[in-house]
Amino acid sequence: MIKASIIGATGYVGIELIRLLQKHPRVELNELVSNSRAGSKLIDVYPQFRGSQVADYYLKDLSEFEVKDNDIIFTALPHGVSQNIVAELFDQGVKIIDLSGDFRYHDTDLYTEWYGIEHNFSELACKAVYGLSEFNRSAIKKASLVANPGCYVTASLLALLPLVNFSKADLSSIIIDAKSGVSGAGKSLKQDLLFTESYNTMKAYSPGTHRHSSEIEYILNRFLEQSYFQSEFGSEFLALHNFNSANNQKATVLFTPHLVPVKRGIFATIYLKLNAESSKEELTELYNSFYETEKFIQLIPDSLPELKYVAGSNYVQLGFRYNKRTDQVIILSALDNMLKGAAGQAVQNMNIMFNLAEETGLEATALFP
Amino acid sequence: MIKASIIGATGYVGIELIRLLQKHPRVELNELVSNSRAGSKLIDVYPQFRGSQVADYYLKDLSEFEVKDNDIIFTALPHGVSQNIVAELFDQGVKIIDLSGDFRYHDTDLYTEWYGIEHNFSELACKAVYGLSEFNRSAIKKASLVANPGCYVTASLLALLPLVNFSKADLSSIIIDAKSGVSGAGKSLKQDLLFTESYNTMKAYSPGTHRHSSEIEYILNRFLEQSYFQSEFGSEFLALHNFNSANNQKATVLFTPHLVPVKRGIFATIYLKLNAESSKEELTELYNSFYETEKFIQLIPDSLPELKYVAGSNYVQLGFRYNKRTDQVIILSALDNMLKGAAGQAVQNMNIMFNLAEETGLEATALFP
Amino acid sequence: MIKASIIGATGYVGIELIRLLQKHPRVELNELVSNSRAGSKLIDVYPQFRGSQVADYYLKDLSEFEVKDNDIIFTALPHGVSQNIVAELFDQGVKIIDLSGDFRYHDTDLYTEWYGIEHNFSELACKAVYGLSEFNRSAIKKASLVANPGCYVTASLLALLPLVNFSKADLSSIIIDAKSGVSGAGKSLKQDLLFTESYNTMKAYSPGTHRHSSEIEYILNRFLEQSYFQSEFGSEFLALHNFNSANNQKATVLFTPHLVPVKRGIFATIYLKLNAESSKEELTELYNSFYETEKFIQLIPDSLPELKYVAGSNYVQLGFRYNKRTDQVIILSALDNMLKGAAGQAVQNMNIMFNLAEETGLEATALFP
Amino acid sequence: MIKASIIGATGYVGIELIRLLQKHPRVELNELVSNSRAGSKLIDVYPQFRGSQVADYYLKDLSEFEVKDNDIIFTALPHGVSQNIVAELFDQGVKIIDLSGDFRYHDTDLYTEWYGIEHNFSELACKAVYGLSEFNRSAIKKASLVANPGCYVTASLLALLPLVNFSKADLSSIIIDAKSGVSGAGKSLKQDLLFTESYNTMKAYSPGTHRHSSEIEYILNRFLEQSYFQSEFGSEFLALHNFNSANNQKATVLFTPHLVPVKRGIFATIYLKLNAESSKEELTELYNSFYETEKFIQLIPDSLPELKYVAGSNYVQLGFRYNKRTDQVIILSALDNMLKGAAGQAVQNMNIMFNLAEETGLEATALFP
Repeated sequence: MIKASIIGATGYVGIELIRLLQKHPRVELNELVSNSRAGSKLIDVYPQFRGSQVADYYLKDLSEFEVKDNDIIFTALPHGVSQNIVAELFDQGVKIIDLSGDFRYHDTDLYTEWYGIEHNFSELACKAVYGLSEFNRSAIKKASLVANPGCYVTASLLALLPLVNFSKADLSSIIIDAKSGVSGAGKSLKQDLLFTESYNTMKAYSPGTHRHSSEIEYILNRFLEQSYFQSEFGSEFLALHNFNSANNQKATVLFTPHLVPVKRGIFATIYLKLNAESSKEELTELYNSFYETEKFIQLIPDSLPELKYVAGSNYVQLGFRYNKRTDQVIILSALDNMLKGAAGQAVQNMNIMFNLAEETGLEATALFP
Repeated sequence: MIKASIIGATGYVGIELIRLLQKHPRVELNELVSNSRAGSKLIDVYPQFRGSQVADYYLKDLSEFEVKDNDIIFTALPHGVSQNIVAELFDQGVKIIDLSGDFRYHDTDLYTEWYGIEHNFSELACKAVYGLSEFNRSAIKKASLVANPGCYVTASLLALLPLVNFSKADLSSIIIDAKSGVSGAGKSLKQDLLFTESYNTMKAYSPGTHRHSSEIEYILNRFLEQSYFQSEFGSEFLALHNFNSANNQKATVLFTPHLVPVKRGIFATIYLKLNAESSKEELTELYNSFYETEKFIQLIPDSLPELKYVAGSNYVQLGFRYNKRTDQVIILSALDNMLKGAAGQAVQNMNIMFNLAEETGLEATALFP
Repeated sequence: MIKASIIGATGYVGIELIRLLQKHPRVELNELVSNSRAGSKLIDVYPQFRGSQVADYYLKDLSEFEVKDNDIIFTALPHGVSQNIVAELFDQGVKIIDLSGDFRYHDTDLYTEWYGIEHNFSELACKAVYGLSEFNRSAIKKASLVANPGCYVTASLLALLPLVNFSKADLSSIIIDAKSGVSGAGKSLKQDLLFTESYNTMKAYSPGTHRHSSEIEYILNRFLEQSYFQSEFGSEFLALHNFNSANNQKATVLFTPHLVPVKRGIFATIYLKLNAESSKEELTELYNSFYETEKFIQLIPDSLPELKYVAGSNYVQLGFRYNKRTDQVIILSALDNMLKGAAGQAVQNMNIMFNLAEETGLEATALFP
Repeated sequence: MIKASIIGATGYVGIELIRLLQKHPRVELNELVSNSRAGSKLIDVYPQFRGSQVADYYLKDLSEFEVKDNDIIFTALPHGVSQNIVAELFDQGVKIIDLSGDFRYHDTDLYTEWYGIEHNFSELACKAVYGLSEFNRSAIKKASLVANPGCYVTASLLALLPLVNFSKADLSSIIIDAKSGVSGAGKSLKQDLLFTESYNTMKAYSPGTHRHSSEIEYILNRFLEQSYFQSEFGSEFLALHNFNSANNQKATVLFTPHLVPVKRGIFATIYLKLNAESSKEELTELYNSFYETEKFIQLIPDSLPELKYVAGSNYVQLGFRYNKRTDQVIILSALDNMLKGAAGQAVQNMNIMFNLAEETGLEATALFP
């Protein structure tokens, strides 16, 4: 059994990790750390765990936590806070999957530019492996520290990365119009997250300037810099896809997130210009070459994604339309922000790290109706 | 492996049965029958099953269906329609769990009075075993035909049945104010089930005259007629609880359902007068004597039920308050209408019938957030 | 023109008062006081007022406020806070409509018992006139201080008061099962008011012990003590209805509120036992005798109330069912908690105080769809 | 008083017209025509009108309807159905505001191409005046037949038309990502409009191929063909804005609508490339030159639109961001699909036609919370 602990166990991502790991057939949940609720019984904070294997767990303070009993630690903490704790854990030689934004950039100056926070562990950041499971397996397998991508970025990259290998794609023209359920904002007490403020309404926020623009762009461009792949984004991948990065482009992304009144889910509508005529068939073949054998990616060129078909599952639905009239591609990507967008992908990465079948503990079908 | 088929596979209860049974470690899903969608692939009707074991299933017409390959059949059909199909299947010697209202009354005149429909199989109705798992295990174990209770009734009976054995309870004064999520109404195309008609609003319907009043009352009274227990509601139960049915009362129920804008869930608020002073302690002891060892019943005398803590799971949360000022008990009962209120309890009953651990395939924790 | 100011202008009730008063043909909105947002422009806090007459208003601190320029002041403040401010304003001789709970009880010991707060102005509390418009017009007309009832209480009393004059009603058996939209809880930053916590779920709170139990009971009993009416609840009312208070009963109320995921609305389902057989006709006549000429009370004995038919309006829908089988009456009452349950009734009371037609500024039809 | 009738009175747009016109100080509502509910009393179909001036109205069949008693007729019918009825009414010499898509194109071949329906009244279509109030006042004032634009199109055109007069705008690159509340789909009984199917989820539909793409493009291009303005889109407008249509471009629009779980509202996020560097100031000046004096257009360059600030009102909120990094403009447009997107704009147009102040009967502030 893999001994696992969660630091930041009472945030929404934390409890989603608990929900998944308590049923994972190869995991033994060790400690649940939550400084804000230390000393409480888990079920007094989250009654839904009554009747489960963790019903008797108490939440601990980080100061009481011992690294040595663990094979892996999940850190589900706010960015800025996470880097210090991760660095300390890392020094004690345990595997870590970090769900914050702190280790997603090797270039920590870029991190500082977009997050407005100093990064004190640039060297460690360069050792972190980007945890987009489907594109980085070989590196994840060997990783000590995985930087788990967020929900917006996962939805966007899974839709866009195949196009990086498509010479007709104009990567300077990417527009991502993303819609998020409210749980993605976490449980902090902000007025605009109140039911009365966010029910029966919707809005955009940070149009064009949200920090996840930079993460999407950064990862796309790391893919485009082919040399990079050798070291991290796997060589097996390059071989498989006969990757060409044809036109020495640099990807530019305009990203606008929206808040919609649903609980779970990211729905991304992505627009991209083509340099030459294409076809549904050509695009289907392109996407198939990446995703045909992927367990969690449902390519549905003949229908359209919808949140209700993925919420509660680790699946991603990907649809697209080639618009001949304007020579554009519209890609639609839907996933559950708590699962494939956070805790689910983290468990998927853990499975990769421990040589388990990738879907272990992640087999749930979406909860519909 | 238990070979199981579902007739009525594309209603909301039907697809919830599919969702549960495809992951059930001891079940092999055989046929999915849906006359309305016969010939379609399941995932073309319900795309959430992509990637699952049933992804390649086709929906069949009932005329193509063969009983003999099955150990058990689930019928999830409208009342009135179900009785004929169940009767035909029963004659072919297969075990059946019927999720309609057609076999819930041994007294078919009462059925006709409340449903406004003739019952053509009175004899078969008397053979049907009432599928309230926690109270009727021994009979369910031996049953050929189980009449699975509905969502309102399960929520109400689990809250009320312990009081049947409480001499201070005035059973003539029961008031049930029940609130249902919209999925409970199924997917028929009625105007008041449109999003625009049922979002951001709520209403009562059939106040005091809904047919489930009669089912709740009928089952409560069958319990009170102690003799009855010998044959159906189990003798082991009587012995266990030193059942007294003290005061020869007859239960009378005033039941008012409401439609609230949530997807899944029944929340019942139940009011009952006491004949004598009681206490939180006495009531806790009473409920504990029934539910302490029950896997799916969460007795929470110190907190209060909430739909989000059960939706997505087979659990029932039961809370209560003794109101000294008015000598009344308020019992609060929350469950997921698709799970413990329908498909979940059906699978629980199947587990009982096939001597499996009752929670097999039903271990999911509520999906929250 | 009536010069009016609002103290507590940026709470949800405060902005509903602004919304109503800025369009009121006989009112000139004077000052908007909000200590928490003093110095801000109203539209920077609540952008929906762009384009309206108050678009240029700034929010003031209470210390800057001068009573003398006003004919009437609306106080929309938390209980406990309100009493001190109201007392100070009252001494300066201005008419006040207070929307808090602080002046709803003449018996301030009862207030303290249920609110857990000292009352420093018992004498003033006894001068306050209870602002249930339909039942207390003559007193409101002469009042200097009106204590505006809350949403739960208005929905309940309008449903129950006619029964006070019905000798068959067993007033010791009143059960009120009330459901509230989330806006009723105000905009304070509490975790259970977050969208993610209160969407797609529901719960009961304070079952049987909520402080509004006491207000409903208290007012019902003041009605039953006939003598009281002479002084406050109007003599014209007594004459009109040939009030008998037949059986020297005392009303007892068991009240359980619920939080449902809608924005605006109170839906109360009220249960009451009768001492003798009655009929739909008898009850219709009883209710008609009270409400036939009431502009804002829609008696609908042949259909059923629903929030969507009142939300956005000052109307109350009242339905009822006589349940012959159990000799009970079920009364259903629906209103908009921001309008008839708060700001709307406050404006109605202002209209009464200033001899305007009661519906002035309150003519809006419910916003549906 | 203006005598007005509504044909198609029981659809959602029909009842919104009733809601507005019954309170309009200069209108007398004459007949309400609804073939599907002919013979019913309005309040038996829509109880929210109890207590209003139309409480006693009966719905009539079209065959009973007489044109001659009316000054203006609103037709709120499905496209395809509307053209025949409008043509017949037109011949009888009454003013008409048609809310269907049937008369929005002078080029009826284009209509047929996108609607898949023959158009039998090409000549009449050419006489129809496009009812985008802010841009076509002088033509609307003289019109006999106004083709009222739909909700998606109004939200998009109000955001885009100022850019038609901006030489830096690359009009070939317009991307509109629009989100609609469910009421926009009307009350037809389709499965995906059920609460259970559209709550807590979202989806795109007809990406890139929705018929409103063509209407937006068509109207933009009519603006660009400057000559056209002389006859319809008013000359006063050209003079005012020193319109240049600088670069002989043709506008191309990629439009993707989404269904989001809110009741009322259109939220459009619009992306457009610039040919040269611009600035927030330049764009603010451009938009101000169009909208500074417009009652219903709220230009908010320093904040962002949100549905809750417009739902229930005839206002449009317009925000924008100039994205220097990618030289793009993001324009955000929010309106109430029932008001400015349908019935509200129709009443605004009626006010123009009858020389009333444009905001008469449309002064409501958004209903929030």
